Amino acid sequence: MKRELLMIPGPVMCTPSVLGEISRPVVSHVSSEFIEVFGDSLRKLKQVFMTESGEVFVVAGSGTLAMEMALVNVCEPGDNVLILSNGLFGERFREICMRHKLNADYQQAEKPGSCVSISKVEEKIEGKEYKAVTVTHVDTSTSVKAPVKELGGIIRKTNAVFIVDGVCATAGEEERMDNWGIDVLLTASQKAIGVPPGLALLAFSEKAVEIYGERKNPVDSYFLDTQNWRNVMDSYMNGKPSYFATPPVNLIFALNTSLTEILREGLEERFKRHALIAQAFREAVKSMGLNIVPFKEEYAANTVTAIYYPEGVEDKVFRSEMRREGVIVAGGLGPLKGRTFRVGHMGNVNPSDIIATISAVERALLKTGCQVTLGQGLEAAQRVLKEL
Amino acid sequence: MKRELLMIPGPVMCTPSVLGEISRPVVSHVSSEFIEVFGDSLRKLKQVFMTESGEVFVVAGSGTLAMEMALVNVCEPGDNVLILSNGLFGERFREICMRHKLNADYQQAEKPGSCVSISKVEEKIEGKEYKAVTVTHVDTSTSVKAPVKELGGIIRKTNAVFIVDGVCATAGEEERMDNWGIDVLLTASQKAIGVPPGLALLAFSEKAVEIYGERKNPVDSYFLDTQNWRNVMDSYMNGKPSYFATPPVNLIFALNTSLTEILREGLEERFKRHALIAQAFREAVKSMGLNIVPFKEEYAANTVTAIYYPEGVEDKVFRSEMRREGVIVAGGLGPLKGRTFRVGHMGNVNPSDIIATISAVERALLKTGCQVTLGQGLEAAQRVLKEL
Amino acid sequence: MKRELLMIPGPVMCTPSVLGEISRPVVSHVSSEFIEVFGDSLRKLKQVFMTESGEVFVVAGSGTLAMEMALVNVCEPGDNVLILSNGLFGERFREICMRHKLNADYQQAEKPGSCVSISKVEEKIEGKEYKAVTVTHVDTSTSVKAPVKELGGIIRKTNAVFIVDGVCATAGEEERMDNWGIDVLLTASQKAIGVPPGLALLAFSEKAVEIYGERKNPVDSYFLDTQNWRNVMDSYMNGKPSYFATPPVNLIFALNTSLTEILREGLEERFKRHALIAQAFREAVKSMGLNIVPFKEEYAANTVTAIYYPEGVEDKVFRSEMRREGVIVAGGLGPLKGRTFRVGHMGNVNPSDIIATISAVERALLKTGCQVTLGQGLEAAQRVLKEL
Amino acid sequence: MKRELLMIPGPVMCTPSVLGEISRPVVSHVSSEFIEVFGDSLRKLKQVFMTESGEVFVVAGSGTLAMEMALVNVCEPGDNVLILSNGLFGERFREICMRHKLNADYQQAEKPGSCVSISKVEEKIEGKEYKAVTVTHVDTSTSVKAPVKELGGIIRKTNAVFIVDGVCATAGEEERMDNWGIDVLLTASQKAIGVPPGLALLAFSEKAVEIYGERKNPVDSYFLDTQNWRNVMDSYMNGKPSYFATPPVNLIFALNTSLTEILREGLEERFKRHALIAQAFREAVKSMGLNIVPFKEEYAANTVTAIYYPEGVEDKVFRSEMRREGVIVAGGLGPLKGRTFRVGHMGNVNPSDIIATISAVERALLKTGCQVTLGQGLEAAQRVLKEL
Repeated sequence: MKRELLMIPGPVMCTPSVLGEISRPVVSHVSSEFIEVFGDSLRKLKQVFMTESGEVFVVAGSGTLAMEMALVNVCEPGDNVLILSNGLFGERFREICMRHKLNADYQQAEKPGSCVSISKVEEKIEGKEYKAVTVTHVDTSTSVKAPVKELGGIIRKTNAVFIVDGVCATAGEEERMDNWGIDVLLTASQKAIGVPPGLALLAFSEKAVEIYGERKNPVDSYFLDTQNWRNVMDSYMNGKPSYFATPPVNLIFALNTSLTEILREGLEERFKRHALIAQAFREAVKSMGLNIVPFKEEYAANTVTAIYYPEGVEDKVFRSEMRREGVIVAGGLGPLKGRTFRVGHMGNVNPSDIIATISAVERALLKTGCQVTLGQGLEAAQRVLKEL
Repeated sequence: MKRELLMIPGPVMCTPSVLGEISRPVVSHVSSEFIEVFGDSLRKLKQVFMTESGEVFVVAGSGTLAMEMALVNVCEPGDNVLILSNGLFGERFREICMRHKLNADYQQAEKPGSCVSISKVEEKIEGKEYKAVTVTHVDTSTSVKAPVKELGGIIRKTNAVFIVDGVCATAGEEERMDNWGIDVLLTASQKAIGVPPGLALLAFSEKAVEIYGERKNPVDSYFLDTQNWRNVMDSYMNGKPSYFATPPVNLIFALNTSLTEILREGLEERFKRHALIAQAFREAVKSMGLNIVPFKEEYAANTVTAIYYPEGVEDKVFRSEMRREGVIVAGGLGPLKGRTFRVGHMGNVNPSDIIATISAVERALLKTGCQVTLGQGLEAAQRVLKEL
Repeated sequence: MKRELLMIPGPVMCTPSVLGEISRPVVSHVSSEFIEVFGDSLRKLKQVFMTESGEVFVVAGSGTLAMEMALVNVCEPGDNVLILSNGLFGERFREICMRHKLNADYQQAEKPGSCVSISKVEEKIEGKEYKAVTVTHVDTSTSVKAPVKELGGIIRKTNAVFIVDGVCATAGEEERMDNWGIDVLLTASQKAIGVPPGLALLAFSEKAVEIYGERKNPVDSYFLDTQNWRNVMDSYMNGKPSYFATPPVNLIFALNTSLTEILREGLEERFKRHALIAQAFREAVKSMGLNIVPFKEEYAANTVTAIYYPEGVEDKVFRSEMRREGVIVAGGLGPLKGRTFRVGHMGNVNPSDIIATISAVERALLKTGCQVTLGQGLEAAQRVLKEL
Repeated sequence: MKRELLMIPGPVMCTPSVLGEISRPVVSHVSSEFIEVFGDSLRKLKQVFMTESGEVFVVAGSGTLAMEMALVNVCEPGDNVLILSNGLFGERFREICMRHKLNADYQQAEKPGSCVSISKVEEKIEGKEYKAVTVTHVDTSTSVKAPVKELGGIIRKTNAVFIVDGVCATAGEEERMDNWGIDVLLTASQKAIGVPPGLALLAFSEKAVEIYGERKNPVDSYFLDTQNWRNVMDSYMNGKPSYFATPPVNLIFALNTSLTEILREGLEERFKRHALIAQAFREAVKSMGLNIVPFKEEYAANTVTAIYYPEGVEDKVFRSEMRREGVIVAGGLGPLKGRTFRVGHMGNVNPSDIIATISAVERALLKTGCQVTLGQGLEAAQRVLKEL
């Protein structure tokens, strides 16, 4: 095992304390020790989701599971769902809709790098009654960030439930569940939450819970029905064990540690750190003459950046050169595959990480035959980082 | 963190190597290192499931998720399903059937401790065409073990898919997927597999895969559809990454280590060890005058034992006394709650563990006011263990 | 790595928390985090040594280093030293004396299992002026425990410095530095202190420090001179770093955790636990017809027991059978080699450990051809352990 | 525990595998598993020391202990020792000489940053018969590197034993024991060896062993006498256990892992990596207008660099600013205290580490009021690192 930097948009590097916790001897899921830790995790998760009245769920699974749980607990067959997509992950919502016989209205951004406009959304929701509107806060394929706050302002005026896929955003991007009118917020452990993969994390607002209560049919999956999990989460938050499925105890110990570290830093500080490091990175790559995928600075995510390769750079060659330099970055996805690389900068990312990444990008581009003025990207980043 | 013995029917104690692996620095799910380890895990899982032609799946989730995946990939709405239940977990299959509009025929054992008879099963499958027959190999609530081999012999003659819930059995009880005609075998990581909780593990036989191929409707869940996972598993087994949902990399490193240890011991040796340790435990509790839940020795599981309390012993008092003695055991479930306690003896369990448990049971019973001849249970266990 | 029981007289099994601490990322020895932890360790070590006025030292090294540090800081060439030995480790003090030109009076117990009598000691110290008297609290080769309290009562009336080698005793056997008049107490991390090997631990009383102050010659070693270490220990206890040699930071993090656990249990409770578990073990082996090395119960240590093999049992065969049973025990030392085996029961040892050990001894003896009534030793142990 | 960079001249950051090994459950020092690992470690240590005929020793302790062991095993009271010092650590050899009544000829470099000249050494050894000549390969206080190869060439022509203190050099700087005529090479685990502190590591050449054999008096310390350790090392190398003092098993598992990683990289590669990273760092600080302590490039060490502060920068303020930036550097030592800071770049150091350090230095200097052109140091470093 070499010391290397994992700069992909998830899974992300964890702190030593988080890794330490995950290797504790296994304890019983009904032990007093675990009860306390699970209860704490749920309470802290509410703080990180910035919700007071929301109900939170921690389930063994992945972000995709969380997406499906969000939709099936809110919608019933025949319901209309508006899907806003600035990349690839809206497509996933659409697939889920198909399986559950929901009528998906799929609104895709014009092209990679653009963002569905507010006016387009207004037009849509005026034209039809939606049971739910979904949006991917940050689409990891394009690194485009949706205007969740503005969308919330519009959707809360309708009957629709606002579902935000925060997989590549929560705990990195500013995201205020209660204030912004988010009804279902979902994410996974391995992104800005800073825990190894294996946990689906969700919160449902009072409005979302109410709508669940008015269902005519049961949720058409057993494992995905929040009703089965609600008692479990309530019990643990009240200091009592309860059983539906064996909770992933070691991952939950790790989750609790990471949430503690997140809250110790403070969410506002954390948003600021992500913003500044992301800006430093964008300034750096721009100063090197590279183009990023998002068209506008306001669309550019603070958790991940997708960058177009300069003419003539081979994706595989570049990334294997980066690996040789000790920095792991991700390739492009979907239509951007081969034409872009992606750098994750979320969770515990710090100035050292981003500077080392920029430095490796400079050298790797040089080695793959690009004209690069060594130090240029670094200088641009330094000018931003000095504000930290 | 004290050194204590976790003797519950899951999650179980892990070896130091498994715990060491789970705390490795997170790596990319597309790194060559992970690709190799994931591919290895899948190949080894086939060996542990004792299948050559089966397709295996490793998914972030729990045993319940695996149960639902089994049913929804085999059945379509309107299909008949026969559920054989010797405890509580058949009920769970029934709930899943309801959600997916499958017609469940629920065959429960007469009372806790008995086992649905082969003749009853024959009667059932002669009377109706079933798409699937499910059985819980070991029901953790009663510690009753179903005659999976015999059931397989009968069901393979029909068109029904034989689904075995091996959650409390696989890698502890003798269980030969190919030989015994099991079509879907499912389990979870935290039982006899010896890994912390968080992974659902499944295998589908050729027959099960064929039936999937003949479906008229798509699987009514996205995350649960094996079709989405098949390419991922195939790719990793062929040394290439593929993406559907971020695999729980750290848990999979741990899984690989545990599977390696399982195969190094050898499955036949492992079955023998489980059988002998379980027998030692049963002999011990019987010699102490206690009754176990299974009516017949042949029903008694080798992975867990449910024991009736003697008159006058309070469940909570006894178990907290056990904890004070450094041994964690589980309480009863369902109708047996308060009247029984359960001891898990699976995975890495060894003679030291079971002897220490019996010793603690003797002392704890004494302290809760029972008449106990100290050493009697231990002596009985020793006579069995000397054969190891 | 198998789960097995390490029942040797050091190194001993550590708690998961201690092992967790030792694998923390390395920190600077002048970081505020380490300063606090080192300071805490020193303060806690004083409590565990039961001294208020003593000066404590934590040095990378072993017990033998601690023995040599004890002697060379107290004595100067030509000084008389009385060495009381109930086994092999007094010999080690004698070797050290030779190197430093100290006149060693070597008082050996009559034979393995006996203990130098108080009257013999009185006779000795009346006849000659000693600069120091050394005693091995528990000699790990014979498992004989010296009457340190009584010896302290006698020696404190003389000018001699009372040096106690607590390597196999401290934090397991009752041992009260200030109350019993111990002037130099030394031990190593890997015994009842419960930390992996690598640390020499010492305390010097005011009397010992005074005598250092009156030296005519400098200590004839640089690394071993307490003067070089005193400022370091003082500084860290006062919240400031100081440098003589790089402190073994990871081991000291582990030490701090173990000392915290020791004090959380409470020393009196800990002495009681060791005494009861040792008694259970002795009763067990005696009831099996085996003989232990110490002649009298009052000599028998609570941290280790040396047992004679019954006729016909081969040391290697027996111990490899024990290993196969998952319990590691030690062979004999010196004249007892081949004729005895030794079981360590110190540190975090609990009833489960000792019961499992006795059970393995019963089975291993049976397999090596002895007449053993299975369960007999266990029954005897149970009768003692029920008092815990 | 934050993710931060520990860039001090020891202890250094360890790889995850090394940290993983150190937290293994403790095993017996006579277990077959440990025997194999200890034997392997010793064989690998010979390779890292680049000696075939030398005898190696691994002892719980620190570098200072190793220095004392080197001298006392070679010299006897009255012997002449020539000490070459380019900083502070020669002084330590002098103190050791005093304790053991050796006549120390102390040859100090003219001023901090200069290096004792070859001609001065030639003059010295022509004028007097020395039993030993000691040199600090890299003096961590000045970051001056001695010309060990040249010195070896001269000293091997005399009867003197050439003792090289490689504490801040071995496994980072080019250092060829057999080829260069080094007779005693010593280091500690926590420097370029890449293991947490706690181990003293030494090798003695045939010449040194011969001289030991001709001693008139025994070594005047018991713990430090190589004779006591020789059998232990020989035994373990021959697959058999042997006891003198309990070996620090967990540290030795870690050592074995690190030595494996060192040899997998290859020593020549490793020297090259250290040289290039060190050069990058020196170019960076020089381009920022800072002065390093070594007068000439050829004196400048590849493992550590001492840099003078620019006018007006407060040591404490600067280093606490660096810590805030997530990079830990060391202060100055001795006469350079307050006027210099030191950066360690050895062991597992990689381009990411050094770039992040330079970046933090730029920003920290700016914040402490210096005139800094952000990016200038980074650019200079990049031009060097591109050769890697």
